[in-house]
Amino acid sequence: MEKLKQLQEYVKQQGLDAAYISNYEDIQYFTGFGSDPVERVLALIVFPDADPFLFAPALEVEDIQQSGWPYPVYGYLDHEKPFAMIADEVKKINPNPQKWGIEMSNLTVDKLNALQEQFPKAEFKHNLTPEVESLRLIKTPDEIEKLRAAGKEADFAFKVGFETVKPGMTEADVAAEIEYQLKKRGVMQMSFPTLIQAGKHASQPHGDTSTNKIEDNELVLFDLGTVHDGYISDASRTVAVGELNDTQKEIYQVCLEAQLAAQAAVKPGVKAEDLDKIARDIIDKAGYGKYFIHRLGHGMGMSEHEYPSIMEGNQLELKENMCFSLEPGIYIPGVAGVRIEDCVRVTKDGCEPFTHTAKTLQQVAK
Amino acid sequence: MEKLKQLQEYVKQQGLDAAYISNYEDIQYFTGFGSDPVERVLALIVFPDADPFLFAPALEVEDIQQSGWPYPVYGYLDHEKPFAMIADEVKKINPNPQKWGIEMSNLTVDKLNALQEQFPKAEFKHNLTPEVESLRLIKTPDEIEKLRAAGKEADFAFKVGFETVKPGMTEADVAAEIEYQLKKRGVMQMSFPTLIQAGKHASQPHGDTSTNKIEDNELVLFDLGTVHDGYISDASRTVAVGELNDTQKEIYQVCLEAQLAAQAAVKPGVKAEDLDKIARDIIDKAGYGKYFIHRLGHGMGMSEHEYPSIMEGNQLELKENMCFSLEPGIYIPGVAGVRIEDCVRVTKDGCEPFTHTAKTLQQVAK
Repeated sequence: MEKLKQLQEYVKQQGLDAAYISNYEDIQYFTGFGSDPVERVLALIVFPDADPFLFAPALEVEDIQQSGWPYPVYGYLDHEKPFAMIADEVKKINPNPQKWGIEMSNLTVDKLNALQEQFPKAEFKHNLTPEVESLRLIKTPDEIEKLRAAGKEADFAFKVGFETVKPGMTEADVAAEIEYQLKKRGVMQMSFPTLIQAGKHASQPHGDTSTNKIEDNELVLFDLGTVHDGYISDASRTVAVGELNDTQKEIYQVCLEAQLAAQAAVKPGVKAEDLDKIARDIIDKAGYGKYFIHRLGHGMGMSEHEYPSIMEGNQLELKENMCFSLEPGIYIPGVAGVRIEDCVRVTKDGCEPFTHTAKTLQQVAK
Repeated sequence: MEKLKQLQEYVKQQGLDAAYISNYEDIQYFTGFGSDPVERVLALIVFPDADPFLFAPALEVEDIQQSGWPYPVYGYLDHEKPFAMIADEVKKINPNPQKWGIEMSNLTVDKLNALQEQFPKAEFKHNLTPEVESLRLIKTPDEIEKLRAAGKEADFAFKVGFETVKPGMTEADVAAEIEYQLKKRGVMQMSFPTLIQAGKHASQPHGDTSTNKIEDNELVLFDLGTVHDGYISDASRTVAVGELNDTQKEIYQVCLEAQLAAQAAVKPGVKAEDLDKIARDIIDKAGYGKYFIHRLGHGMGMSEHEYPSIMEGNQLELKENMCFSLEPGIYIPGVAGVRIEDCVRVTKDGCEPFTHTAKTLQQVAK
């Protein structure tokens, strides 16, 4: 409960009377228990000088107790009024909390209104999001172990995929085989639906795996990841099925050069935006700049939507144990798409990738 | 674009100058295009007397244009300032919008603050959530067709699962086989990770599929669903592997009786809470009331988190073409768990289930 203590210390320092943590990933980060409540209410309430408590849907209470959570947990049934119940418990600890911290990037307007209704004179102006993000930004040794384990599972997934893919199969067939082999090993959850895109379909970076047939002499893009004990992997490889033409080879090599250059530049003190620029300059110079239509990378850990964002304008200086993706892509509409991605951890003087599948162009289905 | 017209009509009637739709499922409902933007910004802006526009991450723009969206779409790159760009476009249509509608159950506090910053004198007090929920509550013939198709896929999944499950396999093995067979058919997306829970593990209704071995003479719970063209299925069955003892048989029969009674009672005019009470009374009377720890059902359509909620306290009267789950469960910690669930559509004088797999106790792996 070290992380929870840090949060409590922050609450105290900031002169807050209570903190309302609503993001279920943050709750998992602080408590060890996490579960997406969707439209139900899951909250961690932290006080400067009293024990915190969890408030959860009744059907989560048993799991929370079994997870080793040492403080109170209060459950509510679907027909009960969660915010009135939360207020009752809060008032037992502090009858009149004035200053609240809330996660503004997660809390919805109606939930804020419901809290305000319970505490009409209280102020909800302190945004906890930056502090929580900054705590989560630097991964602990325990978190890094989980990220390494998830990375190994992604490497296994690539191996299955590269052995499986053949002209005539559908993208869906390949994804099915990968997830099947992972599940047989007990890897139950992908961090997102396995993405397989062949040929020109890969030029839509936000498309889905389809039942399109994979043709001979195409680039096939794999983007996949698993969840290991609450922590994810996320990696992309693009491979050649059959023989490639010059354009296909060129965009692969340009993308690879950009990825390798960015990864080689990672170390403490470098700015997030510098990495994006290193990769983008290489792709620009080769004439494909307009086909690289997303940032270079995103932070990752419990999900692929963490900080730091590796993009133009982010002047954050990298520190040891920040973790993020490096994933340049070149997407030429109607022609082909390439993306090459590793997630890495910043080390003392460089970085450690979580995935190790070769990045030089691989010809599969030979 | 019939649904979008209804929304525009509402905006006009309510005297709003602009509506900001932020829930990506709602955006899909109104525009035909939907994609979870996670921390990025995706918004549909609707005006009383001018064409609406979509605002989206740049990498979604091609997909939106290809989806047939006939109005403008504006994209932004990751390093750009989305709310300033939205404001620029809004001001071209109305330089000074005063009254805004927002989706309070979806919009986060920081996004509201960002909008308010762009329009410091505007009011953001009109909550669109109830109107959008009420539009989505009654499914159209087109939506119902998709729900039927998704239901058929769930029935197929049960068939695969029941043929697969054997003592000695893990829960994960069974889930893997189901999803593999679905993917081979081109069913790429489950509505949630397939849940297989055997024996006492099934007494944790929010647990996950594990690598626990399935034993002989156990109840095995299946809860699964697929996504068909943006619409989901969601159904549960519990089957006997081997021979059951009296307790196992009894909780199955009680749960089944509760499910069938609730389903038989569905028709227009009945209140949502009445269905919950019918099922709950049966389980209470049999002495298992304290083991039925969730509401009877949830609305469904594009996700399993829609309205109407079938629970105590919801006096909503059912109308034709509302769609929801009926899923009583009995969870005896350390002993066993049963859940039986169909999602149904209210018809003129009863209901139509979307799944048709038999609900009488099935003995599998004979």
